Amino acid sequence: MAKLKVVLAYSGGLDTSIILKWLQTEYDAEVVTFTADLGQGEEVEPARAKAQMLGIKPENIFIEDVQEEFVRDFVFPMFRANTVYEGQYLLGTSIARPLIAKRQIEIARQVGADAVCHGATGKGNDQVRFELGYYALEPDIRVIAPWREWQFASREQLIDFAEKNQIPIAKDKRGESPFSIDANLLHSSSEGKVLEDPSQEAPEYVHQRTISPEDAPDKPTEITIDFERGDPVAIDGVALSPAALLTKLNELGRDNGIGRLDLVENRFVGMKSRGVYETPGGTILLAAHRGIESITLDGGAMHLKDSIMPRYASLIYNGFWFAPEREMLQALIDKSQEMVSGRVRMKLYKGNATVIGRESEYSLYDEDLVTFEEGSGSYDQRDAAGFIKLNALRLRIAAQRAKKVAR
Amino acid sequence: MAKLKVVLAYSGGLDTSIILKWLQTEYDAEVVTFTADLGQGEEVEPARAKAQMLGIKPENIFIEDVQEEFVRDFVFPMFRANTVYEGQYLLGTSIARPLIAKRQIEIARQVGADAVCHGATGKGNDQVRFELGYYALEPDIRVIAPWREWQFASREQLIDFAEKNQIPIAKDKRGESPFSIDANLLHSSSEGKVLEDPSQEAPEYVHQRTISPEDAPDKPTEITIDFERGDPVAIDGVALSPAALLTKLNELGRDNGIGRLDLVENRFVGMKSRGVYETPGGTILLAAHRGIESITLDGGAMHLKDSIMPRYASLIYNGFWFAPEREMLQALIDKSQEMVSGRVRMKLYKGNATVIGRESEYSLYDEDLVTFEEGSGSYDQRDAAGFIKLNALRLRIAAQRAKKVAR
Amino acid sequence: MAKLKVVLAYSGGLDTSIILKWLQTEYDAEVVTFTADLGQGEEVEPARAKAQMLGIKPENIFIEDVQEEFVRDFVFPMFRANTVYEGQYLLGTSIARPLIAKRQIEIARQVGADAVCHGATGKGNDQVRFELGYYALEPDIRVIAPWREWQFASREQLIDFAEKNQIPIAKDKRGESPFSIDANLLHSSSEGKVLEDPSQEAPEYVHQRTISPEDAPDKPTEITIDFERGDPVAIDGVALSPAALLTKLNELGRDNGIGRLDLVENRFVGMKSRGVYETPGGTILLAAHRGIESITLDGGAMHLKDSIMPRYASLIYNGFWFAPEREMLQALIDKSQEMVSGRVRMKLYKGNATVIGRESEYSLYDEDLVTFEEGSGSYDQRDAAGFIKLNALRLRIAAQRAKKVAR
Amino acid sequence: MAKLKVVLAYSGGLDTSIILKWLQTEYDAEVVTFTADLGQGEEVEPARAKAQMLGIKPENIFIEDVQEEFVRDFVFPMFRANTVYEGQYLLGTSIARPLIAKRQIEIARQVGADAVCHGATGKGNDQVRFELGYYALEPDIRVIAPWREWQFASREQLIDFAEKNQIPIAKDKRGESPFSIDANLLHSSSEGKVLEDPSQEAPEYVHQRTISPEDAPDKPTEITIDFERGDPVAIDGVALSPAALLTKLNELGRDNGIGRLDLVENRFVGMKSRGVYETPGGTILLAAHRGIESITLDGGAMHLKDSIMPRYASLIYNGFWFAPEREMLQALIDKSQEMVSGRVRMKLYKGNATVIGRESEYSLYDEDLVTFEEGSGSYDQRDAAGFIKLNALRLRIAAQRAKKVAR
Repeated sequence: MAKLKVVLAYSGGLDTSIILKWLQTEYDAEVVTFTADLGQGEEVEPARAKAQMLGIKPENIFIEDVQEEFVRDFVFPMFRANTVYEGQYLLGTSIARPLIAKRQIEIARQVGADAVCHGATGKGNDQVRFELGYYALEPDIRVIAPWREWQFASREQLIDFAEKNQIPIAKDKRGESPFSIDANLLHSSSEGKVLEDPSQEAPEYVHQRTISPEDAPDKPTEITIDFERGDPVAIDGVALSPAALLTKLNELGRDNGIGRLDLVENRFVGMKSRGVYETPGGTILLAAHRGIESITLDGGAMHLKDSIMPRYASLIYNGFWFAPEREMLQALIDKSQEMVSGRVRMKLYKGNATVIGRESEYSLYDEDLVTFEEGSGSYDQRDAAGFIKLNALRLRIAAQRAKKVAR
Repeated sequence: MAKLKVVLAYSGGLDTSIILKWLQTEYDAEVVTFTADLGQGEEVEPARAKAQMLGIKPENIFIEDVQEEFVRDFVFPMFRANTVYEGQYLLGTSIARPLIAKRQIEIARQVGADAVCHGATGKGNDQVRFELGYYALEPDIRVIAPWREWQFASREQLIDFAEKNQIPIAKDKRGESPFSIDANLLHSSSEGKVLEDPSQEAPEYVHQRTISPEDAPDKPTEITIDFERGDPVAIDGVALSPAALLTKLNELGRDNGIGRLDLVENRFVGMKSRGVYETPGGTILLAAHRGIESITLDGGAMHLKDSIMPRYASLIYNGFWFAPEREMLQALIDKSQEMVSGRVRMKLYKGNATVIGRESEYSLYDEDLVTFEEGSGSYDQRDAAGFIKLNALRLRIAAQRAKKVAR
Repeated sequence: MAKLKVVLAYSGGLDTSIILKWLQTEYDAEVVTFTADLGQGEEVEPARAKAQMLGIKPENIFIEDVQEEFVRDFVFPMFRANTVYEGQYLLGTSIARPLIAKRQIEIARQVGADAVCHGATGKGNDQVRFELGYYALEPDIRVIAPWREWQFASREQLIDFAEKNQIPIAKDKRGESPFSIDANLLHSSSEGKVLEDPSQEAPEYVHQRTISPEDAPDKPTEITIDFERGDPVAIDGVALSPAALLTKLNELGRDNGIGRLDLVENRFVGMKSRGVYETPGGTILLAAHRGIESITLDGGAMHLKDSIMPRYASLIYNGFWFAPEREMLQALIDKSQEMVSGRVRMKLYKGNATVIGRESEYSLYDEDLVTFEEGSGSYDQRDAAGFIKLNALRLRIAAQRAKKVAR
Repeated sequence: MAKLKVVLAYSGGLDTSIILKWLQTEYDAEVVTFTADLGQGEEVEPARAKAQMLGIKPENIFIEDVQEEFVRDFVFPMFRANTVYEGQYLLGTSIARPLIAKRQIEIARQVGADAVCHGATGKGNDQVRFELGYYALEPDIRVIAPWREWQFASREQLIDFAEKNQIPIAKDKRGESPFSIDANLLHSSSEGKVLEDPSQEAPEYVHQRTISPEDAPDKPTEITIDFERGDPVAIDGVALSPAALLTKLNELGRDNGIGRLDLVENRFVGMKSRGVYETPGGTILLAAHRGIESITLDGGAMHLKDSIMPRYASLIYNGFWFAPEREMLQALIDKSQEMVSGRVRMKLYKGNATVIGRESEYSLYDEDLVTFEEGSGSYDQRDAAGFIKLNALRLRIAAQRAKKVAR
């Protein structure tokens, strides 16, 4: 009987190394590792040596820089919708999972693997996002979720297993870390332990990629961002690739203390959790995108987008990136962006990302119309009387009824 | 034949004084003035002398402080929904109009007036908001909208009319003002002239009630806000009436450079306009309300609220406060707030209003559940497997179809 | 150690008798039976003797007629929203589950039981509806779902167990029934076996409570239905209690071949299933309710109701009757019904339930307004010009842009 | 100065002939007539002679059969969304107006006309639909709406004008007709006069294109309809063009008394009106389309479609076919239809159009999954336990809070 062949989402860190070894010992599996550079800010290449040391064949080690794909095909489409979950969260973790799941499945097909495996725990959203992605792309794939399966009951047991299996353990990983981190080019998130009491302020040291507003410069930074069809394409007039652009925005955001969020959110699996998110570039981008839409997007289009956004955000948060309803909403959103092009000027200052100017050859803003003086003819103030009268008609009829009934 | 009797929304300023006189001369009307203190920051009592000087009988002069009613019955209900128009605007002007309309109609009934009159122009939203309010409450009321009716074609002609009619004209009102202002306890808005080019930054001097973030103190201010059933009731543990509380928040916001917004928005009457809004207290309140909801509101309830909010915001923006669908949405929103009680701790710093802690005896946040360790029994990680499997089922079936069809 | 005490939803039929016995043998449980008369059309009293025969103590047998509560507190509130799932299904099964769950929990509290148990299978929606109800009302209740737990792998094994345990087996229950039925006062549903191929017409014999349109009388039946605040209160002028009224409508519907539906639907648990539903009275009621709303409900209110209905329907279908968002939507819906009172005249004929007249003292329909002749003054045709002009404004601006850009 | 050149939507009937002449006399306009065959059931060619007789130059007479375009580009896209206004109305009139407006604008460009003109009255929806269409396509077009402009105050004055201008008057047009009709290939509508009292049953003689259910055959008719990507393409296996297919469905519907609707609806201009609609083929098509979707459309996709449908319907009803938000919704809808292909079997009988079977190579229905027996492995009943547990989690937490708070 053939050995089970598993594509593991492998970071090179302690936890996924334990999983790797556990797959070998528990399942007697041939493990294929996939390590993605999503812009998390750590080198990915060291994962190769580590994987080899753990017995993975060179041809079974996949290490890829997917930053451009990540930003172009996942982050930017999401930002076209001004997407925020529960009014605030920019979905930095959620949006990365479908890409990893997709690459794992593609690699599984390439190497003829039977199963995929991820390192997400059994209480979080990420397990759902990974697995919905797997199943949507490869319906009969076998999914292994070690954290839900294995018998380890404590950190000590895990460390014990690691030691027994010659997995190198960095000193600071022996004890429990005071919080856990997820990071990619869009954001960094911190959760757990020291953050578990939502009445207590998050300590400064949990922040990974922003300085605090207090520490930011006393002088504002001004930039321009150019958009084409809803996506940013240049900063200060310099064209940049998607990942390069987001990287640049991250630096600008970091240096100005922009993009911190301390949130209690509702997980798909049913409980509330508290997270500290840092999305420096994304926070600037969201404001800028709203800015360019404000002059290029028709009011009816904008209101429709706004009204479907919460559902779109929940779909991404819950892991339904590959569901047909997400794709339908994307079609609606993309249709709206055809003329969302132009330039936004922003001021960055101690936590604030403020739009201070917007211009576009596609602008729908018409100074003639809006001026207090009577304009060039396209607006006749007397039209407003009829407009109001007919909008009021049903209210008047209802008021007449109320009077009649009250008598 | 009896004289036309008109209840005029009268600020005491030049423009409504001209309207007052115009109603007398053009309609030969008996004018009843209504001057409301909505917290706009100007004395209202001087309007009495001015009205008398323009020939209004004492019994026809109504001057009222409606700040408590305004905040309690209009502002707070709106904030229960975390209401923002087009993603950003806190609706400070929109929410004041229904109250003025309502009082005008009540006074009209009291004094036996046939008509009501407002000073809103023919291009804006306010005419709609006033008149929809009038008609919804008194379907057969006669509405006079001078700006849509009279023949004055320029500022000069208006000033000329004022002079001919002995209306006092402040020196700075002779020329056109560089922008126009609306203000009440919730916000101050600036529009027009110097703001008409949306590519140009709003000059510092248009701001009425906030200092700039740059001018705000270098040291953060921390406060707590207590909520009961969705409404704020105390600051730093001190119970305050609605208007007093909002006044206090305004001071805190002003001093910390909080609540400025430079926006291009879509008017109900069809064109885009650019406004600069300052909502210092409201901006703090919105963040705090989301904060207390984050631990006391069920996820399903929150998502429903978020999804109907844009429609609710548009109804208020468009002037449909007294429409049945606004009342239906309010019933839904109010139902959700029954347990939205507790305390939020906030940090105010140079334009940022940040939630740093939240606690409540009604909290739904459960540390036991969310901890990485296996909790007390209400969550079994293995349940997640089934949860994912069934959520994935339709995606898997669709993926199987895709494979079959591709063959 | 105390015996486990379980409240079982007990129909008195073979399957729940097997469950009863299985609880006794497998769990050594003290079983409390709850048998509800929901209008399913079978006597419930025989369940008493059967339970006693199976060893249930008299004080542990609960048999109740809950038809009035069912219609008043569940069916009618749902019909206020014109609720249909996936465009067609009147939710007859879904709406009964919360009531049963609620009574089981109440009885559990009364008798001091630790657990509740239902007879729904592991592939359907009903298990979800029962259990979400249980948990929402009693969060720490223990739930036993035999069909997901036991080892019986076939009908034969079940029958075998029944025989071994002296459970009486009706002759026609020995083999597999050609389809399964659920029934209550609102509807009867048939599923499974002979209905599993959705390309094949449902056989006439699966229908339980309607004659076919072809068999219905050649002469139409005309009736009137009176509504008060959204609920039906009288037929042909005769006031009836909720259950009596629905019973009467069921007879009228049955006799005229009304209310059959052959549907492939999407289950909450992820697969599609095919059901044949008969909702004779409900089908008449839905049409009648829309009829009375058409003259008494404001357009804005109606459109809001229509837009939230699909979500409301899904909540009920999925078992979230006791969720806060269902209650919020109910608050919205109920608010809208305050003046939905009046009389509807209907024609019933061979499958058709047609509104042919509606009248109400709360009517918003105004013949004067709608007549082709110029009316009494509340509508000035010239107002339409302004109304159109301002509604068109944004479209014109966009068209101007399109021209400019095309150049 | 050049003569005003106007493109008139010309039916050839009395009313639009009066308008034609009025444009000539009142505006001294050069009139261009556009007469469209939309399947209204009257010959359009006679309009040519009539126009010529009224002095229209041959090159200014446009008569076109647009039935195929109408059904393919307007009716079918709308039916992809299962569109009904206010729960019932199939929008037969609304959907025809944009096409007429579009052709008028195209002709105006072709002949260099300055204005367009329609014969819709000032109280209805059609004026809005025409004019929003005009403006959206040609923002600076001049629109002439005679019914809102002219001085004729009664039918007599119109007839008088017609006689003075040698416009032939059919005998039955001298008096007021007992109701007015609009018709095209999708539907026929009747309004006004004898229908103005909504408490009175519509008389049989107002119906134009259906026999009554009572008069329909006692024997059902069975047909199949084939769909491709959401559109019907064949009846009983015979491929038909869009217009030919709808024509065939109309015949089938007419003969079986299908598609009558007696409705009180809310007009965009604010009042309620009562109409009798006959949409025989459309009624069959709606049921059939839902039928094929029921097996080919994913549940998530279906629910999203259902939830946006009311807004889509209102947009069409209100005349916003060419608005960006309608196009965005269409993009969403069209995206969903990619696999909505297959065959539906229907029974037509005395007013009932019933789906009795559906099949498709794209079917998502899986008999294996749904069967009562344990299936082939893609569904494990024990998964349901976890699914329910996590769906219940937030409800349990809320219930725990309720208990705690109640103490």
